[in-house]
Amino acid sequence: MTVRGWVTHLRSSGKVAFVVLRDGTGVLQTVLVKNAVAPDVWERFSHLTQESCISVTGEVRADARAPGGYEMGLNDLTVIGASPLDYPIQPKEHGIDFLLDNRHFWLRTPRQVAIMRIRSEIEQAIQDFFYERGFLRVDTPILTAAIGERSGLFSTEYFEEGNAYLAQTGQLYGEAAAAAFGKIYTFGPTFRAEKSKTRRHLTEFWMIEPEVAFNDSEDNMKLQEDFVSFLVQRVLERRPAELKEVERDVTKLENIKVPFPRINYTDAVATLQAKGSAVQWGDDLGAEDEALLVADYDRPIFIVNYPKEAKAFYMKENPDDPRTVLCNDCLAPEGYGEIIGGSQREDDLEKILHRLREEKLPEAAYDWYLALRKYGTFPHSGFGLGLERTVAWIVGSQHIRECIAFPRMMHRLRP
Amino acid sequence: MTVRGWVTHLRSSGKVAFVVLRDGTGVLQTVLVKNAVAPDVWERFSHLTQESCISVTGEVRADARAPGGYEMGLNDLTVIGASPLDYPIQPKEHGIDFLLDNRHFWLRTPRQVAIMRIRSEIEQAIQDFFYERGFLRVDTPILTAAIGERSGLFSTEYFEEGNAYLAQTGQLYGEAAAAAFGKIYTFGPTFRAEKSKTRRHLTEFWMIEPEVAFNDSEDNMKLQEDFVSFLVQRVLERRPAELKEVERDVTKLENIKVPFPRINYTDAVATLQAKGSAVQWGDDLGAEDEALLVADYDRPIFIVNYPKEAKAFYMKENPDDPRTVLCNDCLAPEGYGEIIGGSQREDDLEKILHRLREEKLPEAAYDWYLALRKYGTFPHSGFGLGLERTVAWIVGSQHIRECIAFPRMMHRLRP
Repeated sequence: MTVRGWVTHLRSSGKVAFVVLRDGTGVLQTVLVKNAVAPDVWERFSHLTQESCISVTGEVRADARAPGGYEMGLNDLTVIGASPLDYPIQPKEHGIDFLLDNRHFWLRTPRQVAIMRIRSEIEQAIQDFFYERGFLRVDTPILTAAIGERSGLFSTEYFEEGNAYLAQTGQLYGEAAAAAFGKIYTFGPTFRAEKSKTRRHLTEFWMIEPEVAFNDSEDNMKLQEDFVSFLVQRVLERRPAELKEVERDVTKLENIKVPFPRINYTDAVATLQAKGSAVQWGDDLGAEDEALLVADYDRPIFIVNYPKEAKAFYMKENPDDPRTVLCNDCLAPEGYGEIIGGSQREDDLEKILHRLREEKLPEAAYDWYLALRKYGTFPHSGFGLGLERTVAWIVGSQHIRECIAFPRMMHRLRP
Repeated sequence: MTVRGWVTHLRSSGKVAFVVLRDGTGVLQTVLVKNAVAPDVWERFSHLTQESCISVTGEVRADARAPGGYEMGLNDLTVIGASPLDYPIQPKEHGIDFLLDNRHFWLRTPRQVAIMRIRSEIEQAIQDFFYERGFLRVDTPILTAAIGERSGLFSTEYFEEGNAYLAQTGQLYGEAAAAAFGKIYTFGPTFRAEKSKTRRHLTEFWMIEPEVAFNDSEDNMKLQEDFVSFLVQRVLERRPAELKEVERDVTKLENIKVPFPRINYTDAVATLQAKGSAVQWGDDLGAEDEALLVADYDRPIFIVNYPKEAKAFYMKENPDDPRTVLCNDCLAPEGYGEIIGGSQREDDLEKILHRLREEKLPEAAYDWYLALRKYGTFPHSGFGLGLERTVAWIVGSQHIRECIAFPRMMHRLRP
């Protein structure tokens, strides 16, 4: 048989040589015996370099010592594309900036391949989860009209319509779609022009945003825990080799079972203060607070009913404590923190108008969104799951920049 | 049982009343008998309006005359959200601009629901097709660095990095990913700031772009025809009710079987000239030419090996006729025209550099892309399928603006 791929390892005793190939789907060890092949084949072998693209012909046999469990005895070897000796990624430690500058090559290394395979598996699991439950996928627009002077927006000139802004969320459109289709989800890139340089921020990241007509806040959390545990289970089942490659402690993932604990925001603040945090009632919780809270648990937790002022205008007022809203964050364990933000949406036209005005948002830009409350308003809830943060947690990565193929950060727009 | 939904039809004899509800997943006819319910229930019925959101309780029984085959006899009815009489979408003809201004409500009407369900089915089928074949999904960036003064680019300020441009394609990144993972596909929004006002253009549309290491142009077409016929078959199997709702002639879709005819560009030009077209060898084919060509066939066709000057710099020179490139367009029948453009990619560093310079593209911006040819270059091919055009063809729509939830066109940025 003939196999094509790129050279990852070369070694030779002078009489017997080993060439390890990768073809993107796996690796194959091949063996070349000098006396058994034509002289020009051995000659071509002797000029091989790392990442040369080659075609090899031979017979495959089981060999427990070989990576992947098989070895190919070579009859022939031809070079498709040679690779100069200055190939950027060498078998040594490289700095992160260098690796990111060479992301197109860094992606070929085993850890990065494993992370990208797990990401792709999670993406398929996301689609399958919603498809099997009768959700409609709805693609909400990236280019959106003026939604006010909110910070962190990328803008672009849009013909004679003034500026368009890159969507930070598809949620408002998702709410309109939920009224049309009942249960929907979005799956697309979202944008934040924020000058954050943390390990948890990207300027361009992918979000999944389900929205369900007639779900209340508790239904919403039930959907979230079913969803998150489904994704973890799927990776455990179908990507064990990749989890091993990234050296993930899978016993931690095996703990991820429903139900996830629900902790009231007010209780969470008391717990944090007892642990020495300076957080005050009314503050949103930062990454360090989140890590402190989730440290006591072996699975994700929900923090519920945040103060109104810490959260967005569209969240529904909590009838039992109108200082708070019917919302939740879902925090991943092992210090990962927020992977989901969700809420029941305010369905009362007067209340949402009041909140819009408090936040000084431009009413006219939200006219169609407000109309959903004017004509046949309905209880509904939804959430947004950050894909890269979820991948980072499941693979056990400290940096979300390695959890997307070509990351975009404040100082990083290339390759 | 209790059902919640929105009122679509109301009628009453004074003694017996019918209320048809939709809940986004289907419709349900309910019946109310004045003498059999409490007076306040009948009173609430008498004030119902179109698109009021209500909750009804009663018993469901099979009834062949009812839409959906079931009818519910009501015991109780409560109003969740009333709807004023000026609900924008009325049971009459509306102009397209009015409908697009009210897209958030227009989406609730039966034809639009059916189109969106078919779109969502196609999207799941796309993922399943590639997942089952071992392709990795790779999300390529929307925000990209300077790739020269090409026309039709949306741009945005990107911190201190200068301008970023919204991606018109993920292909160049897909090629890097194919070398890392073998077989990949992208699935995301792409952008064209073009002043086109045709029925076939959007400024924001979704593209699926597979890229496969070691595939040649013929392998590439084989993948395309398998892919397109898979999508059509899936919709026929799983969305018959929706195809009926949009009044699609499914016999036309049942013809979509592999192989699709391959027609050489040069032959296509001769055919067009014989049919009276003014097209000259060297021109790209316009929408009218495409419709003329495909009119002779009951399934999609491939037009292969276009002249170099009509196509992008990255397409591989045809060794049998260096005036042309190893590429194909895939044209859908019934006048729909191009739904796919594909090609084998130029893998020769000197040749692609020559083409870049001919097109006056900035070499420095493409350094990482060119490096794929410098280090272990490899034959590879890929294509891009336009999602909205594919949906339009499968549902039989004349306008792609109804084939995406919230279309973006030159004069349309809202809602």
